[in-house]
Amino acid sequence: MDFTLGELVARLGGELVGDPAIRVRQIASLEAAGEGDVAFLSNPRLSAALQTSAASAFILSPKAAALTERARILTPDPYLYFARVAQLFNPPKAHAPGIHPSAVVASSVPASVSIGANAVVGEGCDIGEGCVIGPGCLLGDRIALGAGSLLHAGVKIYDDCIVGARAILHSGAVIGADGLGFARDGDKHWVKIPQIGRVILGDDVEIGANTTVDRGALDDTVIGSGVKLDNLIHVAHNCRVGDDTIMAAMAGLAGSTTVGKRVMVGGKAGFSGHLEVADDVTVSADTNVTKTIDKAGVYTSMVPLQSHADWVKNFSHLRRLDAMAERLRELEKKLASTESREKES
Amino acid sequence: MDFTLGELVARLGGELVGDPAIRVRQIASLEAAGEGDVAFLSNPRLSAALQTSAASAFILSPKAAALTERARILTPDPYLYFARVAQLFNPPKAHAPGIHPSAVVASSVPASVSIGANAVVGEGCDIGEGCVIGPGCLLGDRIALGAGSLLHAGVKIYDDCIVGARAILHSGAVIGADGLGFARDGDKHWVKIPQIGRVILGDDVEIGANTTVDRGALDDTVIGSGVKLDNLIHVAHNCRVGDDTIMAAMAGLAGSTTVGKRVMVGGKAGFSGHLEVADDVTVSADTNVTKTIDKAGVYTSMVPLQSHADWVKNFSHLRRLDAMAERLRELEKKLASTESREKES
Amino acid sequence: MDFTLGELVARLGGELVGDPAIRVRQIASLEAAGEGDVAFLSNPRLSAALQTSAASAFILSPKAAALTERARILTPDPYLYFARVAQLFNPPKAHAPGIHPSAVVASSVPASVSIGANAVVGEGCDIGEGCVIGPGCLLGDRIALGAGSLLHAGVKIYDDCIVGARAILHSGAVIGADGLGFARDGDKHWVKIPQIGRVILGDDVEIGANTTVDRGALDDTVIGSGVKLDNLIHVAHNCRVGDDTIMAAMAGLAGSTTVGKRVMVGGKAGFSGHLEVADDVTVSADTNVTKTIDKAGVYTSMVPLQSHADWVKNFSHLRRLDAMAERLRELEKKLASTESREKES
Repeated sequence: MDFTLGELVARLGGELVGDPAIRVRQIASLEAAGEGDVAFLSNPRLSAALQTSAASAFILSPKAAALTERARILTPDPYLYFARVAQLFNPPKAHAPGIHPSAVVASSVPASVSIGANAVVGEGCDIGEGCVIGPGCLLGDRIALGAGSLLHAGVKIYDDCIVGARAILHSGAVIGADGLGFARDGDKHWVKIPQIGRVILGDDVEIGANTTVDRGALDDTVIGSGVKLDNLIHVAHNCRVGDDTIMAAMAGLAGSTTVGKRVMVGGKAGFSGHLEVADDVTVSADTNVTKTIDKAGVYTSMVPLQSHADWVKNFSHLRRLDAMAERLRELEKKLASTESREKES
Repeated sequence: MDFTLGELVARLGGELVGDPAIRVRQIASLEAAGEGDVAFLSNPRLSAALQTSAASAFILSPKAAALTERARILTPDPYLYFARVAQLFNPPKAHAPGIHPSAVVASSVPASVSIGANAVVGEGCDIGEGCVIGPGCLLGDRIALGAGSLLHAGVKIYDDCIVGARAILHSGAVIGADGLGFARDGDKHWVKIPQIGRVILGDDVEIGANTTVDRGALDDTVIGSGVKLDNLIHVAHNCRVGDDTIMAAMAGLAGSTTVGKRVMVGGKAGFSGHLEVADDVTVSADTNVTKTIDKAGVYTSMVPLQSHADWVKNFSHLRRLDAMAERLRELEKKLASTESREKES
Repeated sequence: MDFTLGELVARLGGELVGDPAIRVRQIASLEAAGEGDVAFLSNPRLSAALQTSAASAFILSPKAAALTERARILTPDPYLYFARVAQLFNPPKAHAPGIHPSAVVASSVPASVSIGANAVVGEGCDIGEGCVIGPGCLLGDRIALGAGSLLHAGVKIYDDCIVGARAILHSGAVIGADGLGFARDGDKHWVKIPQIGRVILGDDVEIGANTTVDRGALDDTVIGSGVKLDNLIHVAHNCRVGDDTIMAAMAGLAGSTTVGKRVMVGGKAGFSGHLEVADDVTVSADTNVTKTIDKAGVYTSMVPLQSHADWVKNFSHLRRLDAMAERLRELEKKLASTESREKES
């Protein structure tokens, strides 16, 4: 599968500067690119790498147009254009429709669906056209899967959950396990509260490897359309995540927290339960969202790195901050009275 | 499956105020409840929701009895009562006994056991009456599973581990993998120390999705009865977790740490290795237990959230706390000598 | 399988003090050891446990030789020697070669390979001699597995990834899922960037349960030889981890970060993206590596534990550190002018 640069801009737009007959067939980084590759420059600081790159063509912003004499496509957002070229050059793997003989499928599925070896699909499932259910996937009963969804090998979905169209779920993801719902019997044992809600994923959702989204306790856990969750993320029961929100790996949401639309969450960030986070908020990596955030902006609580020796010196004071503040107040008071006595005398 | 309120209190206790013939069949939140639902109020601040709720009956504490005129069950712990009603209305899913033909089972199991499609059970396992081993579960050799235990789809248990009665293990949980045990060969390679201990889970343990409990290095890793672990938790080799302890998602225990009974651990909390944590301790979310805790209480090290701009201003000082403390001492000294000179003059 | 102490030192070196005919067959901790066990002492502070231990022989450093009169092997690094004895006494479990009839294997594999029940191996894979692919493992197409590698039950590997010789991959590990690669379409949707790199694991790598290593976006994600990753670790796309680096559970690397050789990473530590970490660095548990580290040493940002009451008092000041610093500067200025006025008068 290869394209001329002329074909590329005919399909994807952008302004071509250079020979439209040049043939390209893959994307690559500036450093690794060779003949037939397209590379992109989104950061002008990397222009040195551009000079030495062996790519056949470049994707550049108009203001970077003069950085090279070679074939280039000018577009206001080179990274987005690059994504589109990458998709064109690397279409999803084709899966032959049909059910592998080793799979155990108790629901009827459209002929266009592909179900891999040793997968298990329970009763009453509603699997959309063109879905791919990878080897070893384990689906319970009455699960709905929207058209065109792709489950990589070894995804698990509990009963009654709903996945929208064009979802991509990665290996080891678990959708719909019970939330941590227990009432305490006096000060002794924990009594399980059956978790009778579902998980509902919107359209175009991607869920990373080994990420878990728990079913609701009473109501549902809802992940909006276009949401992208990285690996090893935990979404607790009754959470609601707004459309087009993206979370990096190891982020975690405690129960009943509502996150807005287009929120960006850094890796290892955590959210306390029962909070509301506004649309368009950015949460930095390793930050604890300990209270409701009601307006867009960037929020952070990450602890900066130090050499261990500096850390020992500095962080011992964290246990004495209140005493330091008190000593500061005391000094201010004393100095004020020194000054006032000085003035009087 | 429905019940009259009269039947409910006959089974579960509590004082009924209202018509005992009212029929109910499900639990719901105050907001979502409709005809036939029972809702509960544990927090008096939610009494507005109570007024507008369409539930057929409410579970209330005696002192909240006057908040509604409608049918209500009075009980000292409404949340606990709600849990019991929820269990009554939502019994565990029934699984037909028997071994699915696609399962590969090398041990003999009681006729009451249900083993799902494509599950694998090794040799010499001792599976208790009424156990459910879900589709795709992977059990090694010589594993003991207590009566009435439920393994959701895709649970993995390594050789020789012991699970007590009535356990619930969620999808993707891994019990008994090797701990991180290596000796260093000089300053070069890591030499593996075979992990020959087991994992022993007590009775009534629940383990969340994708949680891992490593086997002991020499002795066993032991999880007490009634322990509830949420998703994506790590319990390292040789840890001991006391009865009825509960941990929220993403908490982690380093090796050889002993946690007491009835400890409550917030999400993302971490424990250093070789510590002892007393009974009835509460550890806040995202808190690092860096030293032994020898008495009950609440412990915290979470870093509070700020706007990024405030964080930049404030947290840069974390690298200078010791210098600040030194300047404070210097000021105190100088002011003291100013004051003493003032007194002399 | 048992050995005399004479046979042990003939195989593994060390100086035997005591009867070479004593028979031993297992390792144990000082406390749990009985007849036939070998125990070791690496920390002289544990010499009391040595006195009361019922082990048949001890592994000691030469300077601890006098701590007991009983049979002992003297060696400069008792823990390393213990590891070697442990390996001798506990050889890896033998797996009968051959493909279980329930496995679905689309590649040809050497006769020495063992493939467990319900495992799935795709097309074009290159499986080395003596590999063990456990029950329920799910391997895509064109995967290379070096000789002698062991995949525990339920490991998933995506297409085109490469695993070196003698690897040990634990249950639930996911190798080669897509990295979190998206370009944003204006301020709206996320457009997926196909992840066309691979994961390459060197020789003698061990990967813990439910750990995920994502494939590269364009280039590969590379894990060096001898690297040991514990459970629930995330390695993002395009990372490079140097030989013999070890990471404790729940550590996470954001994308395109390069970690040097022999780095030791504590549990729950996190690395920002696009960083470089030098060889022989140690990162403490729960520490955020927020910037490049260009020289060996120990680095820390862990927040120390406090009682909740102390935390409330002390950590409220974290939001006012800049104001405190400003007040300190103000005091210094005022005191300096008080002093200079004093001097003048």
